[in-house]
Amino acid sequence: MSWNTFGRVLRFTTWGESHGPALGAVVDGCPPRIALSESDIQPFLDARRPGQSRFTTQRQEADLVRILSGVFEGQTTGTPISLMIENTDQRSKDYSEIAQAYRPGHADYAYDAKYGIRDYRGGGRSSARETAARVAAGAIARLIMPEVAITAYVCELGGDEIDREAMNLDEIGNNAFFCPDAAAAQRWEEKVDAARLAGSSLGAIVECVATGVPAGWGAPVYAKLDSDLAAAMMGINAVKGVEIGDGFAAARLSGEENADPMYPAEAGSNQGAPRFGANHAGGTAGGITTGQPVVCRVAFKPTSSILTPVDSITSEGEATQLRTKGRHDPCVGIRGVPVVAAMMALVLADHKLLHRAQVAKR
Amino acid sequence: MSWNTFGRVLRFTTWGESHGPALGAVVDGCPPRIALSESDIQPFLDARRPGQSRFTTQRQEADLVRILSGVFEGQTTGTPISLMIENTDQRSKDYSEIAQAYRPGHADYAYDAKYGIRDYRGGGRSSARETAARVAAGAIARLIMPEVAITAYVCELGGDEIDREAMNLDEIGNNAFFCPDAAAAQRWEEKVDAARLAGSSLGAIVECVATGVPAGWGAPVYAKLDSDLAAAMMGINAVKGVEIGDGFAAARLSGEENADPMYPAEAGSNQGAPRFGANHAGGTAGGITTGQPVVCRVAFKPTSSILTPVDSITSEGEATQLRTKGRHDPCVGIRGVPVVAAMMALVLADHKLLHRAQVAKR
Amino acid sequence: MSWNTFGRVLRFTTWGESHGPALGAVVDGCPPRIALSESDIQPFLDARRPGQSRFTTQRQEADLVRILSGVFEGQTTGTPISLMIENTDQRSKDYSEIAQAYRPGHADYAYDAKYGIRDYRGGGRSSARETAARVAAGAIARLIMPEVAITAYVCELGGDEIDREAMNLDEIGNNAFFCPDAAAAQRWEEKVDAARLAGSSLGAIVECVATGVPAGWGAPVYAKLDSDLAAAMMGINAVKGVEIGDGFAAARLSGEENADPMYPAEAGSNQGAPRFGANHAGGTAGGITTGQPVVCRVAFKPTSSILTPVDSITSEGEATQLRTKGRHDPCVGIRGVPVVAAMMALVLADHKLLHRAQVAKR
Amino acid sequence: MSWNTFGRVLRFTTWGESHGPALGAVVDGCPPRIALSESDIQPFLDARRPGQSRFTTQRQEADLVRILSGVFEGQTTGTPISLMIENTDQRSKDYSEIAQAYRPGHADYAYDAKYGIRDYRGGGRSSARETAARVAAGAIARLIMPEVAITAYVCELGGDEIDREAMNLDEIGNNAFFCPDAAAAQRWEEKVDAARLAGSSLGAIVECVATGVPAGWGAPVYAKLDSDLAAAMMGINAVKGVEIGDGFAAARLSGEENADPMYPAEAGSNQGAPRFGANHAGGTAGGITTGQPVVCRVAFKPTSSILTPVDSITSEGEATQLRTKGRHDPCVGIRGVPVVAAMMALVLADHKLLHRAQVAKR
Repeated sequence: MSWNTFGRVLRFTTWGESHGPALGAVVDGCPPRIALSESDIQPFLDARRPGQSRFTTQRQEADLVRILSGVFEGQTTGTPISLMIENTDQRSKDYSEIAQAYRPGHADYAYDAKYGIRDYRGGGRSSARETAARVAAGAIARLIMPEVAITAYVCELGGDEIDREAMNLDEIGNNAFFCPDAAAAQRWEEKVDAARLAGSSLGAIVECVATGVPAGWGAPVYAKLDSDLAAAMMGINAVKGVEIGDGFAAARLSGEENADPMYPAEAGSNQGAPRFGANHAGGTAGGITTGQPVVCRVAFKPTSSILTPVDSITSEGEATQLRTKGRHDPCVGIRGVPVVAAMMALVLADHKLLHRAQVAKR
Repeated sequence: MSWNTFGRVLRFTTWGESHGPALGAVVDGCPPRIALSESDIQPFLDARRPGQSRFTTQRQEADLVRILSGVFEGQTTGTPISLMIENTDQRSKDYSEIAQAYRPGHADYAYDAKYGIRDYRGGGRSSARETAARVAAGAIARLIMPEVAITAYVCELGGDEIDREAMNLDEIGNNAFFCPDAAAAQRWEEKVDAARLAGSSLGAIVECVATGVPAGWGAPVYAKLDSDLAAAMMGINAVKGVEIGDGFAAARLSGEENADPMYPAEAGSNQGAPRFGANHAGGTAGGITTGQPVVCRVAFKPTSSILTPVDSITSEGEATQLRTKGRHDPCVGIRGVPVVAAMMALVLADHKLLHRAQVAKR
Repeated sequence: MSWNTFGRVLRFTTWGESHGPALGAVVDGCPPRIALSESDIQPFLDARRPGQSRFTTQRQEADLVRILSGVFEGQTTGTPISLMIENTDQRSKDYSEIAQAYRPGHADYAYDAKYGIRDYRGGGRSSARETAARVAAGAIARLIMPEVAITAYVCELGGDEIDREAMNLDEIGNNAFFCPDAAAAQRWEEKVDAARLAGSSLGAIVECVATGVPAGWGAPVYAKLDSDLAAAMMGINAVKGVEIGDGFAAARLSGEENADPMYPAEAGSNQGAPRFGANHAGGTAGGITTGQPVVCRVAFKPTSSILTPVDSITSEGEATQLRTKGRHDPCVGIRGVPVVAAMMALVLADHKLLHRAQVAKR
Repeated sequence: MSWNTFGRVLRFTTWGESHGPALGAVVDGCPPRIALSESDIQPFLDARRPGQSRFTTQRQEADLVRILSGVFEGQTTGTPISLMIENTDQRSKDYSEIAQAYRPGHADYAYDAKYGIRDYRGGGRSSARETAARVAAGAIARLIMPEVAITAYVCELGGDEIDREAMNLDEIGNNAFFCPDAAAAQRWEEKVDAARLAGSSLGAIVECVATGVPAGWGAPVYAKLDSDLAAAMMGINAVKGVEIGDGFAAARLSGEENADPMYPAEAGSNQGAPRFGANHAGGTAGGITTGQPVVCRVAFKPTSSILTPVDSITSEGEATQLRTKGRHDPCVGIRGVPVVAAMMALVLADHKLLHRAQVAKR
């Protein structure tokens, strides 16, 4: 099957291939009378845009978004918002090799096994270019919940973790890695340069934190907030793992260590939420938010496109070897940061609306 | 919101509280003319059943399933299958303490924040008893895809991993931990006994492998197989992390290390799928199966119910302390094994049907 | 496929066959803290219950509903409400004839063509007994929107219309036909008696009016209120046509005749809605309510079960003749009245919640 | 809420306003390897296109469709197909009158009541221009089921019915009314001319017949084929009634008259379906197709835009009068014909895929 819609009441549908004329998203269910123009969306696309440093792919895309519907006189109308981004750098190149053989680690073989046809130009629909549409949609989701702030950053790159003590969110914009630890960012420059020059690649872990989320969002039991976040993150290209709160580390704690004790609310707390002594849970209990920050971590595998030849087969099943030339991110996790943040926004905004469907006064 | 249905074309809806008269599942979309009786379901419920060893909760539940609809003369008819399990051990007890205060780490506060009301008897809807309904539904999912075999086991308990070299799937049934490593199982006996006697609790990691899955299942891009698996697993009570294939470890590999080279198919391979040199990807690429085993790992936090008093608040917001007495699993991950396997089955069966919706010949 | 769930955010799933042990509904998404007990539901089931006059089937069913989940201390908790009705009058009878031949006008052949198996006892899942579950769910829907009042009645039976001038809603409960015109009810007694004694059957038209619906419910463009109502009504057993407002008659009006002029709101109007000079539209425009009464008309075909032999075929495709003996409604439209009202309630309550998902203040 | 997606496994999402830059549809779930280009879609848009005779609106739109994704080397790839149609005749005009007052019979007031904002230019999202996107999507649906042929036509206009004896489907293309009766078409010329010159408008009834549909499509009980067709048709702008088979007339038949007797299959029948003596049911029983032609009738109200002033109110609630100038269809039902056919195709193709999800061999 093909299933290109995400969300329950705030839903978005994306379309487009890496080397087609354009890609886009249709965002449905957005509340009316929210001020919206392209300039609310473009900065997020700019953050994800390729070609901004030597540490990401050299594909050059302006990634300019156009709003084609759903906005009237500067405000959302409640009707579907169609967003379109034209592909401008569909560099004409020789695809004959990957047209006839499957790139290991890519979706080439799987798409062919499923559909009996694949658009081999840059991976077609399986290309991470699709995530531009998510980032655009995510910008709208943020406007739906001004009470929530979302921050994402790389917390580990090629096995090298940030120093949590030295963490400073203001640093995120100061380096090419969305890294909140200046010293780590410097180390990573060398790491990524080395991988890039060797035609190799690196994995990374992205952490995302949403603050200001009131207690009560989430929909037990099959649309738990954690569950929807896990789906949202695991569906991003190259993602292989998702954690909420302490995640896998929680499996190594005792019940006493993992406890998040509660204390009476402090004045000025997030909508009267209690004070918590810890946040091992990552902001949810039973799939419902507790008023604590929602914390999620996402593992990106190393980019599959490497210069080292790897054994593979042709579409006729014959043995061959492939090395993936062309413009690639040496660490796809870096540009995953704005995508992770966008998916967090889209899940939370959907749950804000879902929650009030059931419990709003009017 | 409340969202108690899972799946896209094979859908199941569960209902019921820990201490209500019964719980159940309605399974919709099951293909017709599959032989089905209670005896196909009961063994899976028996595997999950509490009270079978000193390492799990002492609640005694027969967990006998009844099929109330959708089966005629021993075969599914294609209409909804209603499954019901009566609660028999709703031990009358004094709930006054947890009626008035929130158990830390439990969903008590979150449910109250959301709904303004909660069934405090045993956690009500947030109780892990709900997973009995999933296990029952999962047994039906297995029958929909006889070509697929699913195995799940605990691969780490309280931070103590199995020895992969010593792993033997035949051992899984020989101990109380669903552990495929006899030596580890012995060590875990002591570990869990110690935790149990101390009124403490332990986390665990459950691994699940599905073999026989043909290439081509999965639905890009928002119903990727990985994405649906992540949602399915993260929605299980006490789960905080999900990995596909190498998961977080993949973020620490280089592109060369993470490559899954492909070789021409061997005679008798799974539906003509190529041979792979490794399975770092865990059986999927681009959200679609490759014909390799689908591999998933799930992190369970330690049971939140412990005897050590933890700071908390009352429903009026006053400071208090709570220690959770009663019958509890010292390591909820153990009984999570049949639940993880059931969710794997439900996701795969749904995708089998989804896949043929789009590409079946007839 | 099998698709036994209805609704978007207020969703209900029904299960059960005519001659199985029980049938039921799981209602999901109901707001919390609504007072609910069996006694809120039973009166609606009693109105639909068979065997109450000589004009309906003589099957005797107590149709007693049990609430199995979702209610705690007399209030809804926001979790799924499981409703169960046991089948008590599954009269043992000889089904050999319909087991081997298809009753014309019934779903026997269609189910067999689809599934290759059918529960032939009383029509199995295709029996109108399924509508008991809808009526039970509908009772809950009504409680979600106390501002709305729903009335349904037969406005035409066997081609004989009520006199709109003589219409009196208080009469509906005074006769066996849910007829708001006492004189028509008397004529219908004879009509239905004659059909019953001749082993024949009659069609009917049911009208349903919802008042108190505020302006603004509905979800353009593929969940228009009209659209969801049409689906809800056309899915009731034996229904062949649905109209909103003037319906087919509107196709014979000129634009001037069909206009619904608007005037400034009167004091005390339904949430400040304007006054309308007419209601040809039946309470909606562009799929959204206008504050006028929502009006819907539903055509029921005559019961297919008649004593006159009709040509048919056996499941082996051989020619045969069938006359349907047994207990049947001579006019299935009569007992359709509570079902139509229930579906109206379920659609409106769903849209109340959907509407506030998108536009609620909080 | 806003809900712009239709379908269950073959899903399409439409977007765009009457006077925005463009409108479009994203079609998801289409099977792969179907030959598709703009030339497969354009003829259907041309049939719906305005300005082709004096009997329809004089708005001039080329309605040229572009495929932006989902097709590679002339074949569908199984990924979402994005279709875009630019609006070229957004004639600059003075909207001040309808910006400040509600056109009776239009969705102006309802949209404002719902959203607190409306795009008043040509009705914005509530304009029938949206149906161009459905017609484009419908062209793809037809290609998914080459075994099915769909014909639609006006069978009644302004209360004047065609002569069923004189009906000739070949006539449909020979007149401006999609009328299968040449004599009626001539009478209608006068009728529509008179209405047009008087600034009045007329209603119409459109009939749609699908042949070649095998027995077994449909999804009991809440996605019955009839139910989905009713939703599909009732959601078309200006539609107020839907019938399947004999529809409301069936409510006036006796059980004997309404019987559809069955006879053994004839050689060469539609997939071995039995022969039926009549088709009062319109091709379905229990919501599942029987192999007979699927027959549906749809009532269009007269266009609400008329030159006669009608009482209305301003957005401030003050009394006013409005006469709708500008370019309008004197009988919107005429251009509804390709839309009805498209919706029939979309529902049937969805059910083809849904059916094989549950019962396909592979």
